[in-house]
Parts: sequence; structure tokens; C-alpha cells
Amino acid sequence: MLPWSTEFAGVLEEHDLTSTVLRGNPLGDPHVRPIWVYLPPGYGDDPGRRYPVVYVLQGYTGHLGMWRNRTPFRQPFPELADAMFARGEAPPGIVVYVDAWTSLGGSQFVDSPGTGNYHSYLCDEVVPWVDERYRTLADRDHRAITGKSSGGYGAMITPMRRPELFGAFATHAGDALFDAAYRPEFPMVARLLLDEYGGSVTDFLADFRSRIPMSRESDGPLLEFYGYSAAYSADPDGTVRLPFDEFGATVPAAWERWLAHDPVVMAGQPHHADALRSMRAIWIDAGNRDQYYLDLGAQAFRRVIAAAGVADERVYFELFDGTHRAIEYRYPLALAWLLRRMAGD
Amino acid sequence: MLPWSTEFAGVLEEHDLTSTVLRGNPLGDPHVRPIWVYLPPGYGDDPGRRYPVVYVLQGYTGHLGMWRNRTPFRQPFPELADAMFARGEAPPGIVVYVDAWTSLGGSQFVDSPGTGNYHSYLCDEVVPWVDERYRTLADRDHRAITGKSSGGYGAMITPMRRPELFGAFATHAGDALFDAAYRPEFPMVARLLLDEYGGSVTDFLADFRSRIPMSRESDGPLLEFYGYSAAYSADPDGTVRLPFDEFGATVPAAWERWLAHDPVVMAGQPHHADALRSMRAIWIDAGNRDQYYLDLGAQAFRRVIAAAGVADERVYFELFDGTHRAIEYRYPLALAWLLRRMAGD
Amino acid sequence: MLPWSTEFAGVLEEHDLTSTVLRGNPLGDPHVRPIWVYLPPGYGDDPGRRYPVVYVLQGYTGHLGMWRNRTPFRQPFPELADAMFARGEAPPGIVVYVDAWTSLGGSQFVDSPGTGNYHSYLCDEVVPWVDERYRTLADRDHRAITGKSSGGYGAMITPMRRPELFGAFATHAGDALFDAAYRPEFPMVARLLLDEYGGSVTDFLADFRSRIPMSRESDGPLLEFYGYSAAYSADPDGTVRLPFDEFGATVPAAWERWLAHDPVVMAGQPHHADALRSMRAIWIDAGNRDQYYLDLGAQAFRRVIAAAGVADERVYFELFDGTHRAIEYRYPLALAWLLRRMAGD
Amino acid sequence: MLPWSTEFAGVLEEHDLTSTVLRGNPLGDPHVRPIWVYLPPGYGDDPGRRYPVVYVLQGYTGHLGMWRNRTPFRQPFPELADAMFARGEAPPGIVVYVDAWTSLGGSQFVDSPGTGNYHSYLCDEVVPWVDERYRTLADRDHRAITGKSSGGYGAMITPMRRPELFGAFATHAGDALFDAAYRPEFPMVARLLLDEYGGSVTDFLADFRSRIPMSRESDGPLLEFYGYSAAYSADPDGTVRLPFDEFGATVPAAWERWLAHDPVVMAGQPHHADALRSMRAIWIDAGNRDQYYLDLGAQAFRRVIAAAGVADERVYFELFDGTHRAIEYRYPLALAWLLRRMAGD
Repeated sequence: MLPWSTEFAGVLEEHDLTSTVLRGNPLGDPHVRPIWVYLPPGYGDDPGRRYPVVYVLQGYTGHLGMWRNRTPFRQPFPELADAMFARGEAPPGIVVYVDAWTSLGGSQFVDSPGTGNYHSYLCDEVVPWVDERYRTLADRDHRAITGKSSGGYGAMITPMRRPELFGAFATHAGDALFDAAYRPEFPMVARLLLDEYGGSVTDFLADFRSRIPMSRESDGPLLEFYGYSAAYSADPDGTVRLPFDEFGATVPAAWERWLAHDPVVMAGQPHHADALRSMRAIWIDAGNRDQYYLDLGAQAFRRVIAAAGVADERVYFELFDGTHRAIEYRYPLALAWLLRRMAGD
Repeated sequence: MLPWSTEFAGVLEEHDLTSTVLRGNPLGDPHVRPIWVYLPPGYGDDPGRRYPVVYVLQGYTGHLGMWRNRTPFRQPFPELADAMFARGEAPPGIVVYVDAWTSLGGSQFVDSPGTGNYHSYLCDEVVPWVDERYRTLADRDHRAITGKSSGGYGAMITPMRRPELFGAFATHAGDALFDAAYRPEFPMVARLLLDEYGGSVTDFLADFRSRIPMSRESDGPLLEFYGYSAAYSADPDGTVRLPFDEFGATVPAAWERWLAHDPVVMAGQPHHADALRSMRAIWIDAGNRDQYYLDLGAQAFRRVIAAAGVADERVYFELFDGTHRAIEYRYPLALAWLLRRMAGD
Repeated sequence: MLPWSTEFAGVLEEHDLTSTVLRGNPLGDPHVRPIWVYLPPGYGDDPGRRYPVVYVLQGYTGHLGMWRNRTPFRQPFPELADAMFARGEAPPGIVVYVDAWTSLGGSQFVDSPGTGNYHSYLCDEVVPWVDERYRTLADRDHRAITGKSSGGYGAMITPMRRPELFGAFATHAGDALFDAAYRPEFPMVARLLLDEYGGSVTDFLADFRSRIPMSRESDGPLLEFYGYSAAYSADPDGTVRLPFDEFGATVPAAWERWLAHDPVVMAGQPHHADALRSMRAIWIDAGNRDQYYLDLGAQAFRRVIAAAGVADERVYFELFDGTHRAIEYRYPLALAWLLRRMAGD
Repeated sequence: MLPWSTEFAGVLEEHDLTSTVLRGNPLGDPHVRPIWVYLPPGYGDDPGRRYPVVYVLQGYTGHLGMWRNRTPFRQPFPELADAMFARGEAPPGIVVYVDAWTSLGGSQFVDSPGTGNYHSYLCDEVVPWVDERYRTLADRDHRAITGKSSGGYGAMITPMRRPELFGAFATHAGDALFDAAYRPEFPMVARLLLDEYGGSVTDFLADFRSRIPMSRESDGPLLEFYGYSAAYSADPDGTVRLPFDEFGATVPAAWERWLAHDPVVMAGQPHHADALRSMRAIWIDAGNRDQYYLDLGAQAFRRVIAAAGVADERVYFELFDGTHRAIEYRYPLALAWLLRRMAGD
């Protein structure tokens, strides 16, 4: 009963997936991962029917358990998605909730010697695992991926890298145009590190792990930028390279490795442009007051995929009134749109 | 497995309680309410043993389902409390999670013609219900109440009104010294109402209920102050009286009804002072940078209970470094202390 | 030459006025005061012509020397006023720049045992001094007063108290509706005082006077509220009573003395209502985003003078787009309007 | 009399200097410029004595007339400097107040086809003009330069470029480490431009010039970054190139021209390092909470001049408690130190 809980029209199945590629990851994080598979209303009625699948990624610091978090007056996305299906607003589809959390807050859905092989986990383990166990339409034209913030980032880059797996995607305020989204924070983060830890990220990590986490205001930014660095600019031996020096100036060698992960940069490369042109549907949105300027990132990504030759009719683009927060009501809109597009509408 | 979930050492039992006093409440909110009862490790081992009980209240906009909410790097309070018992840091006790949510966000744990009889629900229905079903030490000396913010408010006023039921309490940043905590917001709220709804709270409510709730920045403050008014200054016929006029000036008639609910004012009244002196244990804390100046409220409440004759040795007082947010790690400290005090330590 | 300076079309005469009523003031501030008298273009041409006079008051912390302050891309008000006359946008008038600064930042233009007799200085010394030395139309129908912020406050209350002297006034974001403008700051100020000076305003003052003033963020608010208290709620022996206690709660005895100075309260009293009805012209404006909610004060004052029976055609009211800052471009508009109204336009 | 004004112990002489190099400047700004020359107490007593000279530059949007601006409870720098001399805290020196204002707010003290030849004006016109008219010690070992913010920037770069003219300098929170000081603002500025002017800086300028300037919140940042671009990255024909595109991403071609002006970059170049090593005294300070991260810039500049081989004993470095605002009380400290150092102390 609302607001406390709700009954699902479909079924949300919870599993643990024992990963091979995450075993022995550099952070010592679990290689057994929760995974949720949502089956839409009617899934059990016709044993011969197969369904498209949408994979859902989370933002930085998110883990699977947080999809249940309830906020005042609103429902969590899995409930909104279920209600959307119950109302018949989209063709039925399977929704897979993927966990790519790390003890630094996230993985950015890439393979990195700093965090682990989360791209491989998603593409080479999760997708086959789902296709084996559920009646999916197991081809790229019926497989989409979506997410918000870092999850939107993952939803942009994964199909660019693996167009044979994903044929559509949606990004809500996804990390893009790193020059505008990330770099402006460097001096702020550098000053925190300098003032509070003498510039030593090692000292920060030791302190962070020794006390109530997130009890200092600097915890969030320091962890976030260390975590991004672990994903984007770790050395082969796992050494994490920050993209700024002690005074906040860009360190070009590390920054270039970040930029190589920027969806706006990636989309300008021929093989990624090929992948993007092959997409059946691309949803891009962001709040016009996004605190991280991801509205600018969304516009830049929109521009670069146009330059890459993506046909306008395959793209949905919107800057809605809002910030980076409390925009989960956008997710079902994109979910329905992706499913309609994959159904050929 | 952390961070996704954890195994409890004790048992968390979930029930629905069908209330009589909430039936037909003015907001049309459910009168069947969830209630959780946590049984500590060992509860099942000795069928003859009885346990003290601590009732736990939530802050404004909180409802029972939100106790499961997970934040990055931390555990929800029910898990922290369980772990505290598992470590043996306090004598075992039963912990009851009470729901007093309303569709305005909360009830302030009072009986009001604007919201419903939540004080009666708590005292006359929940407490007996628990005592009937569990092996409680069913007397006021073994019954405590605790909460944060509006929950801390409820934890202060309920024992003052019903000392025969509660013999100890804890308040974390509880609403107190309304003059400092609430009144400074009046002009801000009044201007929002004036600018966005022409000063009409009816128009606000109609708008709020017609769209995605909490999607406008004014939603939070407007709903909060309307909700407080519904709790503190509704007329017998249910008409809600705001304590400020269209330009933000105090409306004395309504404001006096608010003040009559202020723990600092209440504690100065003889019968409440009697009640407070009868308490075996009172825990008061707040963050020294509390956004709502509830550190000042905590200090004012500490002063007034001293003036009421409460012995210092029964009081724990602390201003800790922190704000109003992310302070759930404080709750187990007070829970353990209350249980130790009720056990005679 | 702009932007550095400008040539006046009229003449700005600078004098020192030796006050009797300020001699021996409680703060030991100078009783010899600068005063500036601006004579419009043409003043020297016709020795028989007499002119209306507008007295100009400054906001809190302002002193006469600050009228010369230049900001990027704008001119100071005395230059704007001169240019306005030069363009012939208003009938020529004499403009008198009054200084009522104190070492606490200001006087609120009242007589107080905490600061000095600034109301008497203005009304009983400055006005006659000007009328003696210049060709004024020396009657209340040709004497107006204007100001911003605390200066707007002075411009509201002085004609209410001395309608035989002033027959018109203008207030730009003048202090009004103290409940909305001042009281919300009490907890913030109280916490600063408690955290930084153990609650002792004496310690604050000693510290403030011992070092670079205004080098701590708390200096501004602490000095401001101490200064207002010195103006509004000093005892006959000069003891300054703050209107809030150490935890930020209102102290009714002192607060009532503040309220007795609130233009909105004053305007509701019969003799002040009489005075207001006698005004030939009243200009009220404020920025719609005023940080101190003086837009709400302006609206409340507008409402109360209507209730007092002031005819609508004598009032100009506007909430313009803006904040409390950088609104000096509004002053010439009111100055011109007052002069036109006094001329019978 | 304070606070209104003060008597100087020395003499402040005001002149106009008719520039040749500023004639016909691209912004159409005046080529006749005010210049103030302060002569210390005793200057008139000994007609044979010659004095060291310190040139003083202003921050962005500053012009000469603003040195008179009075703030509550403090004195303007020219008065503080005079008082410092009167107290005998430094060997007497001549202080020259230079104006390099432009109608975009400033010139950054460089020669640019976007603004004019302000470097040449300072070095080739002002300095000789002063040496001709006053009893200066007319050599680089007795000529220093100082300033705050953009003025501190000018004080860093001018001696690097013209070590034959200046042998000492002081920078208070001078613009340095552009990567940390300027670049983080690009997305914010770009979004303002996009949201309010469709990305057209021409539209912004036309609008800005058509109404009350600085009456929109975006005016400051837009004008500032346009003005910096006019100084750092204008084409030979005067076309101003912004260093960011419509979405806030860095435009490398323009940004490299900015970086070529960064004191931290410049100091790493051999001829500038030579110049720096020749300095007799270098004062660097900044507030530790500088809003523009100029504390980081100060530290980076300190590090790079050490790397350039500047001897530690010639450098004074301090991060003081403060922000970017209200730090004019620092200026006399550096002024005195420079004069003592130039006197061989």
C-alpha cells in the first residue's frame, strides 16, 4: 500500500550472479553480484513469447539495493516502470537492473586496472546470463540500455563499444563533455585535499575508511574524483592517477586518458560513429539547471552524434525544467520510448 | 551482503495494525498502518524473559518504508541497531518502528483535527498492541521513545503528556524552540506562496496534487509549513490556520497555538515539569551546524528541563559536529544508552 | 570625465554642521557633522526664486563620504540626480544629504539613549539650518525626505512623527514589517554570538574594536543587530537590550520596543495615520528578490497606509525586478516624482 | 575627519596624462588618463632627495576614481598607505596610482588589439612621465609594482617582461594558474550566454549597453570573460575570441593564447625566469578561502619561481585567513616591505 510499498503487476526476480571477470578485482569488492530481472505483466501467460530487454544502470555511488529507496511523495523507478507497463503505455519488455558498484562508489562501467572489469561484466557475463535464463529477443535490435548520470554515461559508451550487443540507449543527464562536467571541479577538489590532507589522497582514503564515512563535507568530492580516476586513469598496475596536481591544474597525461572516455570525444571517432549510426533509438535528456552542466554535455553529445550522421528521426532530445536531482520520473518515459522504438513504432 | 543488504542477528517482524482512532481521519489517509517490531538476538531463546521497549519515530516526510533506504557507504538505522545488539553494547530490548505519516508529510505525533489522532494512535493503540503480542516489560520504567527531527519532537512531547507510558526518551535534533526553528522561515515561505500561488495555499495544494510532487523548489517548504499548521493550528472543523499572513508576519492567534506545542514552552508548565522530573533518562543531542537551528533548540530544552528540576545525572547532552543531515549514526548511541539506563546502569 | 568623475550641472556644497543635540552622545561620536547641499542648475540665476527641498538619508553603515563611491559602469546617486535635473526631468529642487552615521553603523534616525539624538538632529537642527542658509520653500508641503534601506526606514518614520516638517516621502526597500525583515535573523545572529563569543556581545565589541574591523564574517550581522538594538531598545541609561536571548528566542520586552518602531505598526496608530493622510506624495518600492524580504515590508506598508485612509492617487508603489543591492538607479526616479508632486503636477 | 575623510600627512597629486599609445584604441576609450602621484611626508623638505617609486595597479572593473571608495569602518588604501608612512613604518617612497581601465572593465595591463596598448602605456609612458616630473630614483632597483587580483596579475607579468624597468613586485591574490582560476568558470559563463543570449556575445554586449549596466546577474561574469578574452585572445584585427565554445568546452586555439599570458606558465620560460631571478623582492599572498582559487595560483606561482631559481630570501609568501574581498588592509604591508627591501633592508 502506498506510500509504504506497492504491489507489482509484473514480477521482480532477484538473483546473485557469480562473476568470473570481477573475481580478484583490485578493490577487493565482491565478485558475486546481485542482479534483478523484472518480468512484465503477461510474461507468464504465453510461454512461447519472447521479449526485448532494457538494461538499467545507476549513477555514481548507487548500488542495486538503492533502487528500493523511497522518497516522500514519489515511488522508486522500478515501481514507476511496473505501473507504466500495467497501464499499457509500452510494449512489454524485460528490465534488467545491473549492479556495478565499487567500494569507491562506482565503476563508470569500464574495465579498469583501478577498479575491475565492469564493462566485461556487463557485456560478457550479465547479458548472456539473462539471455540464457529468460525468454528474451536475444539480439542487438531488441536490447537497449539506459541510465542516469554515471548510469547515463554507461548507457552512452557501452553501445558505442559494443554495437553488436546494444541497438538503442537512453541517457538522462549522462556524464559527457568532461571539460565542462568534471574539469571545473578540479581546483575545488584540489584545495580540499590540500587543506585537509596535505594533498595526500592516500591520507584521505585512510581517514575515510577509519571513521563514519561521508561525515565530512569533503568526503563526497574527494571520493568521487578519486573514483573517477580509478576508472579512467589508473595505470596498468592499478596506480590511480589524478588528472589534477596539488594546486588543481590539469595533469595532461592523466586528463587525456579521461578525455578518451568522454562520450563526446568518443562519438567523434569513426568506429564509434559507425556504432552510433547503427542505433535504432537514442534518447538524450537533462535538466536545464543541472548542477554539473550535464545539460551542456547533453547538447554537445546531441551535436556530435548529428555530425556522426545519426538520423534525426532516431533521436529524442529534451532539456526539461529541472536539476540533477529527483528526476527519476523521467526514466519511464525513456523506457517506454525505447521499447516502442524497438518494436518498430 | 553489504552494501546491498545485511543479515539481521535479531528479527524484524512486519505487521499491519488496524487503527480505530485513525479511521476516518481528515486527510483520508489509511487507518491500517504498517508497524515493525524488532526482536533482539536471544529473544527466542528464553520464553520467560521480558524486555524493555524503545519506540522509534521518524522525521517529517518520513514513513516506515523509508527505514530501509540505503545511502552510499552507510547502513540504515535498523541494521545499525541490530549490529549494536549483536555486539552486545546494550542490554537486549525490543525496538518498535512506528508509522505516523500523513499525506501532508507527517503528523507531529499529536492529535489534530487537521491531520488525525496520531498521539492517540501511538499511545493508546500501538503501545497496548505491542504489549499484547510481545514479551515486554510493560511499564513506563521500561518503555522509552526516540526519534530525530520531528521524530525527536514526538519523543520529547509524548512522555511529557503521557509519563505513565514513557519513562525515558531521546531526541536527536528534535524540533524545539519554535521561535528559532520555525518562525524565521515564515517570510521565505510567505514569499513563495505569494509569488507562485498569489498567496493561496489552496491553489498550492491543488497544483501540488495535480503534477509530479516535489518537482518545484517551493514544494518542500510550502508543504512542510502547511503540514505543521495542520498539526498545530487547525480549527476544530479541520480548517488549517497558517501562523503567518500573506506578507510573512506572524499571526498571533495561530502562532500561540504553535507555541503551545513547543517542547521548550511545554517543559515550563508544572504538569509537564512533573513528568520530566519522573524520567529515568533523557538524551538530547544535535549537530552544531543544524540548518534549522535545532542545536539552539536542544540547548534551550536542556536549560528548561534543568529549570524544571530534572537531575543532571539523568541527562545526556551533546552538540556534535554535524548538520541536520546524515546523522543516523547517532541513533544507536542513544538507543544503547536508554536501554542501559532502563536496566539500571 | 567618466568613468572617473563628472562635472556637475548644479552645485554640491559641503559643510560641517555643529550639532547641539549630538554633543556628548553616548557613543562618543562626533557632534560636528558633514552635510551636503545640492543646488540645482539655475539656482544662482534668479536670486528671488525659492525651491522645494528633498532630504536624503543613507542605509545602515552608510556615511556621507560614501555617496562618492563609484561602482563599475555606474554613477553615484548625487551625479544621477544632477543629471536628472540637467535633463529637465523634474522641477528644480534643493537636495540635502544628511549624515546620521554612528560608530555602530547607523542611528535609524531616531533619538535613543543607546546612540544619540539623531531624529532631533535631523528635524530640529538640519532642517532649520538649511532653511536659514538657502532659498528654500520652507514649509512642509515643499519638504520631502527619501532614502533606501535604513534610509527608507527613516524616510517613513520621520514624516509620521513630524508631519509639520515633511509633506512627502519616498522609501526604497525601507526597513518595515520587522517581523519579516529582522526577526528571522535572530537565531543566526545568536548562534554566531554563542559560537564565537560565548554569547557575550561585550566580548564581541571588544574584539571587533581591537582588530581589522569587518574581517570576520560574523562582524556584519553582529554589529548590525547590536546597532539596531542600540537604536530601538536601549534603556534610559544607555544599556543596549538585544531582542533575542542566547539561543535566538525572542525577548518580548525588547522586541516590543523594536515593534514600536516598525513603520507598519506605527502606521496603524491614529496620530500616525493622520500624519500619513496629510502626505502629498508617498513613493514605495522594493526589489522583488530583496534579501531581507523588504518587498514584503513594502507591501505590508502599502496595505497599512491604505487602511489608514491614504488616497491611492497620492501613492506610487512598485516591486521592481531586483535585489537589495545596486538599486541606486531607482533613487532619481523617486526624487523626480516627489518634486513633481510637490510642484502640484 | 574619520569616517568621512582624513587629512593626508603626505600629498596626493592628481594629473591627467595624455597618452599617445592609447590614442585610437579599439574600444574608443579615453586616451587622456587620470594618474595620481602620492608624495610621502617630507618630500617637500629636502629638494635634493630622491625616492623609490611603487606603482599601484587595480583589479578588474577598477578605475582610478574607485580608490576613494570608502567602506564601513575602514579606510581606502591611499589613506592607509599615507598613515603607514606617517607612522614611519617604511622608508619614504613615491606611490603612483595608475589607471588602465577600459569600457570592458580592464585591460590586464597588456597590449592587445582587443583593448589597447596598456602595457606600453604603463611602461613607456607612465614611468617616464613620473620620472620626468618627480624626484625619483629612476632605476629598476628602486622601482616596484604592486596590485591585487588583476592588478596583482599586472604586477607579476610586467616585471617579467620589463625587468629593466621593475626590480620588485607584490601580488595580492593575483590572477595566476589560469587552469584553476579561469577555466572552471567556462561552463557557467557559457550556460548564461546560451540561456540568456542564445550563445551570442554580440547580443549580450548590445543588450548590456542599452540598459542599466550590471542590473542582471549575468552581466558580471559575461563582461568579465569577454573582457579577459579581449585582452588575451583577440585577433590582430581586434576580433575577440572566447576560449570556450557555446557549450563551455575549451577552444584550444584561444585557450593557448590565454595560457601564454599565465604568470605560472610565463615564469617557466627562460627569459622570464632570468627576469624573476633579477628581482630584489617578490611578495606573494592570497586569502586561503579566495573565491577564485587564487590561493592555489599563489602557491603555484611560488613553486614555479622557486624552480626558476629565485632565492628564498627575496620572497615573502603568505596565505592569510580571508577571501578575495575586503583585503585592502594587506596592501600597506606589501608596500612597506617592498620599500624596505629596495632600501636594502
